[in-house]
Amino acid sequence: MSVLIIGGNGFLGSNLVSGLREAGRRIRVLDRSPQRPDFDWQGIDYRLGGLDTTDVLVDALDGVEMVYHLASTTVPGTSNQDPVFDVTSNVVGSLNLVAAMSKVGVRRIVFFSSGGTVYGVPQSLPVAENHVLRPISSYGVTKVAIENYLLMYQQLGVLDPLILRPSNPYGPRQSTAGIQGAIGAFLGKARHGQAVTIWGSGETVRDYIYVDDLIALAIKAGLSDACGVYNVGSGAGLSLNEICALIREITGTALPVEYLPARKFDVPKVVLDIAAAQMQFQWAPRVPLREGLTRTWAALQAVP
Amino acid sequence: MSVLIIGGNGFLGSNLVSGLREAGRRIRVLDRSPQRPDFDWQGIDYRLGGLDTTDVLVDALDGVEMVYHLASTTVPGTSNQDPVFDVTSNVVGSLNLVAAMSKVGVRRIVFFSSGGTVYGVPQSLPVAENHVLRPISSYGVTKVAIENYLLMYQQLGVLDPLILRPSNPYGPRQSTAGIQGAIGAFLGKARHGQAVTIWGSGETVRDYIYVDDLIALAIKAGLSDACGVYNVGSGAGLSLNEICALIREITGTALPVEYLPARKFDVPKVVLDIAAAQMQFQWAPRVPLREGLTRTWAALQAVP
Repeated sequence: MSVLIIGGNGFLGSNLVSGLREAGRRIRVLDRSPQRPDFDWQGIDYRLGGLDTTDVLVDALDGVEMVYHLASTTVPGTSNQDPVFDVTSNVVGSLNLVAAMSKVGVRRIVFFSSGGTVYGVPQSLPVAENHVLRPISSYGVTKVAIENYLLMYQQLGVLDPLILRPSNPYGPRQSTAGIQGAIGAFLGKARHGQAVTIWGSGETVRDYIYVDDLIALAIKAGLSDACGVYNVGSGAGLSLNEICALIREITGTALPVEYLPARKFDVPKVVLDIAAAQMQFQWAPRVPLREGLTRTWAALQAVP
Repeated sequence: MSVLIIGGNGFLGSNLVSGLREAGRRIRVLDRSPQRPDFDWQGIDYRLGGLDTTDVLVDALDGVEMVYHLASTTVPGTSNQDPVFDVTSNVVGSLNLVAAMSKVGVRRIVFFSSGGTVYGVPQSLPVAENHVLRPISSYGVTKVAIENYLLMYQQLGVLDPLILRPSNPYGPRQSTAGIQGAIGAFLGKARHGQAVTIWGSGETVRDYIYVDDLIALAIKAGLSDACGVYNVGSGAGLSLNEICALIREITGTALPVEYLPARKFDVPKVVLDIAAAQMQFQWAPRVPLREGLTRTWAALQAVP
C-alpha cells in the first residue's frame, strides 16, 4: 500500500508519517515547506509542492493507492484576515487535487477537516456529525466547502472519501509559536518561563486529543472502506484555565496568564460526540490528558 | 429607500426590479449583461459590471441602503463542468461584495440561495431549513459557502443578511433556452411545437413557485429586519410528467417527450417546508400552478 500525504511536514502530518511508516506503508509526502529538522525522514519520498497545479499533483499521485489531505494555508485565527486567499488556496487547491485524483484514477482520500470550527457555536454538547454547520471563521467555511465537494464527488462516483473532524489535537512536534493550538503554545511559554496569552476569560472549552490517538484512528479508518464524516476527539471538555493549571502542575512552572479581550471568531465551547467513530472503527482514545501532557512536555524538553 | 440589485437583468432580477419599482423604491442594477429588451427599464440606474472588482462594487453601493444579490455565473446543470470557475467567480465574487459593503457601511443583504440544490438528496420531505446541507452539484456547494460567509459576517457584526432558498420559480421572462428551469424550457418547446427533453423517467419532483409569489416574499422579508435563512416555495411537489400534462392541457399542444438517461447531479425529489417564512413574514404563495402557467404562457405568446 503506497500512500501520499499532502501536508506531511506539519504537526499532524509528521505524526501520520511516523504511524504509517510503523505500519509498513510506502510513503510519499507533498508539502510546501522543506523537511522539518526535528523528524527522521528516512525512507520517505519527500517532494516540495502544494495544491496549486494539477501537474505536480498528478506526478505526486503516480503509483499511489490513497491520499491523506492535511494541507491548509490558513489557521482559524488568521483566516478571516483574507478569506479570498483562504478560498482560492484551500478550496480551489482541493478541487485541483480531486481533478488530479480523477485523472490518475485514485479514489480513496482521507481529509482532515476541523471539529473545532465547522459547527460554529454548537446548539448542544457534545456535538455530533449531523449538527448544523454554521462556522464563524473562514477556516471553518472553507473546510465545509471542501467536505461538501468530496461528498459530492462520492455521490458522483468519483471518490471514496473519508472526512475526519478532529477536535484540538496536541502532542510532540506541535508548534509552540502560538498560531494554532493552545497546548503547544502554553508548553512553549512554560519552557521559557513566559506568560501565556488568553483571549477572553479562559473559560473557553475545547476537546483535546493526544496526537497518537488521532493518528491511530486516521490510519485504522483510512485503511477501512468506510466513507463519510467522523468526529475525532476525546469526547471531554476542558477550559483553558484548567489546561493552564494542569500544565503548572506537570511542568512545575508558574505560567502566568495575560488575559486579552475575547475574539469574535472563537467558538466559546466545543466538545465532540465521538460515538460514531468509536462504533464504526472499534476505536477509543487511550491517552489521558495528564499523560499526554507529560509526554509532550518531555518531548519538548528533548528539543535542543 | 435606495436598493442595489446585483444580477437585476435576469429572470428573477427583472421581476424583482418590477416589484420594487411598484413599491416606490429607487433602484440601481448591476449586471454583467446589457439590459434585456423584453423589459421596461425606465427609471432604473443600470450599470454594467460583476462581482470581480471591489472598486466597481464600492461605486455601485454609493447611496444604497440595501443589496439584493441574485448574481450567479453558473447554473446547477453546468456547474460541475468547472467547479474551480464556480468557486472563483461566485464565492470569491460574493466575498468581494462583502468587502465593498463593509467598506461603504451597507449592512443589509438579501441573498438568493437555492432551495433545490443546497440540501442535496433530502432525507425527508418537505425539507426544512435545518436539514443537513449535502449538495450534489457545485452550484449547491458554492451557494452553501456563500450562505456560510454571510452568516459568519452576521456573527462578526458586519452584515444583516437574509438568505432566501427559493424552490423552482417560473413565470414571465424565464429563459426558454433550457439551461435552467423546466417550465420555461417546456413552454418554449410548446410554442414551437417541439419535443421536450427529460433526463430520467420524468418522475423527478420539484416544488414550483410563481415568480410573483417569490418576489412578494423577497420584498416583504427584505424590508423587515429579520435575518437568517428561509425556504421560499409552494410547499407542494409535482413531477416533470405532471408538469408536461398540465402544459399540454393549457397550451393545447402535443408536447412530445424525449427521455434521456438520468443525470447524477439531479436531486430526485425536493419539496420545501415553507412554514418558517409563512410564520415570520405572514406570507403565503397565492398563485396556483394552473393559473401561473396560464399567465406565463400568455406572456410568452406576447413576445414577438
